[in-house]
Amino acid sequence: MAILVTGGSGYVGLNVVEALARAGREVVTFDRILPPPVAAAELSALPGRIHAVDGDLMDAGALDRAFHAAPIEAVIHTAAVTSGPAREASEPQRVFQVNVLGTIGLLEAARRASVRRVVVTSSGAAYGESLYRPGLMQEDATPVLPTTLYATTKYAAERTARRLAELWQMEVACTRLGTLIGPWERDGSSHAQGVRDNFGPHSQLARIAVAGGEAVLPADECTRDWVYSPDVGRALVMLADAPALPHFVYNLSAGIDWSGDIAAWCEVLAARFPGFRHRIARAGETPNVHYTDRARSLMAVQRFEADHGFVATRDRAAIHCAFADWVERVGRAWHAG
Amino acid sequence: MAILVTGGSGYVGLNVVEALARAGREVVTFDRILPPPVAAAELSALPGRIHAVDGDLMDAGALDRAFHAAPIEAVIHTAAVTSGPAREASEPQRVFQVNVLGTIGLLEAARRASVRRVVVTSSGAAYGESLYRPGLMQEDATPVLPTTLYATTKYAAERTARRLAELWQMEVACTRLGTLIGPWERDGSSHAQGVRDNFGPHSQLARIAVAGGEAVLPADECTRDWVYSPDVGRALVMLADAPALPHFVYNLSAGIDWSGDIAAWCEVLAARFPGFRHRIARAGETPNVHYTDRARSLMAVQRFEADHGFVATRDRAAIHCAFADWVERVGRAWHAG
Repeated sequence: MAILVTGGSGYVGLNVVEALARAGREVVTFDRILPPPVAAAELSALPGRIHAVDGDLMDAGALDRAFHAAPIEAVIHTAAVTSGPAREASEPQRVFQVNVLGTIGLLEAARRASVRRVVVTSSGAAYGESLYRPGLMQEDATPVLPTTLYATTKYAAERTARRLAELWQMEVACTRLGTLIGPWERDGSSHAQGVRDNFGPHSQLARIAVAGGEAVLPADECTRDWVYSPDVGRALVMLADAPALPHFVYNLSAGIDWSGDIAAWCEVLAARFPGFRHRIARAGETPNVHYTDRARSLMAVQRFEADHGFVATRDRAAIHCAFADWVERVGRAWHAG
Repeated sequence: MAILVTGGSGYVGLNVVEALARAGREVVTFDRILPPPVAAAELSALPGRIHAVDGDLMDAGALDRAFHAAPIEAVIHTAAVTSGPAREASEPQRVFQVNVLGTIGLLEAARRASVRRVVVTSSGAAYGESLYRPGLMQEDATPVLPTTLYATTKYAAERTARRLAELWQMEVACTRLGTLIGPWERDGSSHAQGVRDNFGPHSQLARIAVAGGEAVLPADECTRDWVYSPDVGRALVMLADAPALPHFVYNLSAGIDWSGDIAAWCEVLAARFPGFRHRIARAGETPNVHYTDRARSLMAVQRFEADHGFVATRDRAAIHCAFADWVERVGRAWHAG
């Protein structure tokens, strides 16, 4: 039996596919675009078996083709428009169509195919205004006050999935992801078909490093609720496989203090890429590395650990080392692509 | 300058139109169906001037026609699918399309027409799981945990309107309505084009009373966060007219204990309609009056009063008297229609 990964060519999706392929699993990927060649080459070298189906989430026929590419036991639904302000102002309906109606369409297709379980990826962004207040974000106790359309659609998709799971008697679990750092992020705005408007500072720095350039950083570091992307892939597979789902929604992040991480990551990159330089912007100078939001409060991560034994990597040096290995081995071609 | 009322043939919409027409205002109504003849006759006798435009919220051209029927100064957006479980299970995409994409389309049309302000009607249902916990529902402090698709779309429409107001520099206010009791409710499920799946017990009883029948009530009364429907019409007009909007979202309800209200309403109806009888169902007997949900906690109503001076009618005897007057005068034809 295979796992279907929607958005299989995207940032979260590629990490899920890698986790599955590394474990020798059978995978069907579904995305508007086929996996980028650099990723396809890496993933095909792993023991798993991958079928890539290209199609639009809004196309029920294309979805059904994906569900018939192999017998599907569970779906990990990562397809989404990760919208920034410009896209939200210019095409708000499209953001809703893909992120909410697309999730409904996916659940409808899963129901037609009698699939056992669907894992829906939501986002810590859903907490919205609460993220800028002190305290840990708790799955049910913290007011969910989404600010952006992206966050609003993520929360709406969560609650919709919960409702349809009840009405249709399906198993659905949901994760609110921290902000991923690590392999397989690319600058969606630089790709013709990109729907990911954010591009995190770690990957921005990796791209500058492989190009042998100079990073000019904002004067004030801005940390986020970061989580290593392979951990996210691994955790989502755990939810697809879990014998039981005691809760509907799980925060999924590292739950650690990341202060000083950007400077530390710059040092790691400088040691690996001799041409790479980095410094803080002078007064009045425009940095060439950007943070995608203000600092956020962290999410509580106890529930995922208590219910499923998942603990994200919390050793920052180990994350930097593994990520830098990936940047050296894959990142040159990836960030050039 | 006129006020545009979307969903102008619906329960909330007719109460808004009546409040405006009573105040001698110019109104454009927009709805898939023209106002029912009984309502049209009542409203046309009031001093205001009403233009009725029929069209679908999902049709941008039809919306533009409504915005050009008269110079529009503000919109009160009440159009929505008020879905029950059967509709949510069978056409979940449609509920989202009308309630969220329809709200986006309405805001886009308002922006094209350079309209000053839009008032969006959300629902206390948005609080969802929190409604069944003790304590008052507070606009920003209470976790919003919508359970049904209806509630999920209402909250999504709120947050979307807030985001687009910010991105597009529009004035938008939002109200979370209590459960309306009073004039202009009809059983949507009994109408071919109905999209209102709920029909409250007060109106069920009024319909039985005008038919001279016997009401068989559930053994346990179930109160809700009720509010008299003309108060809702009046309050929404206050938000459209308010010189400033210190907050984005306002609970809009009566904020009183309604216990014993169904029995009291039965007594009022019995005094006015001699053929009307009412009793509690015997053990094993199926009642012919239904509650549409479990008892809910009440919403805090201080914010609307503090910012805009709005206080709902809290004198239950006065509400019963005014509502019974309406049932005698209009309800016979309305509930037969």
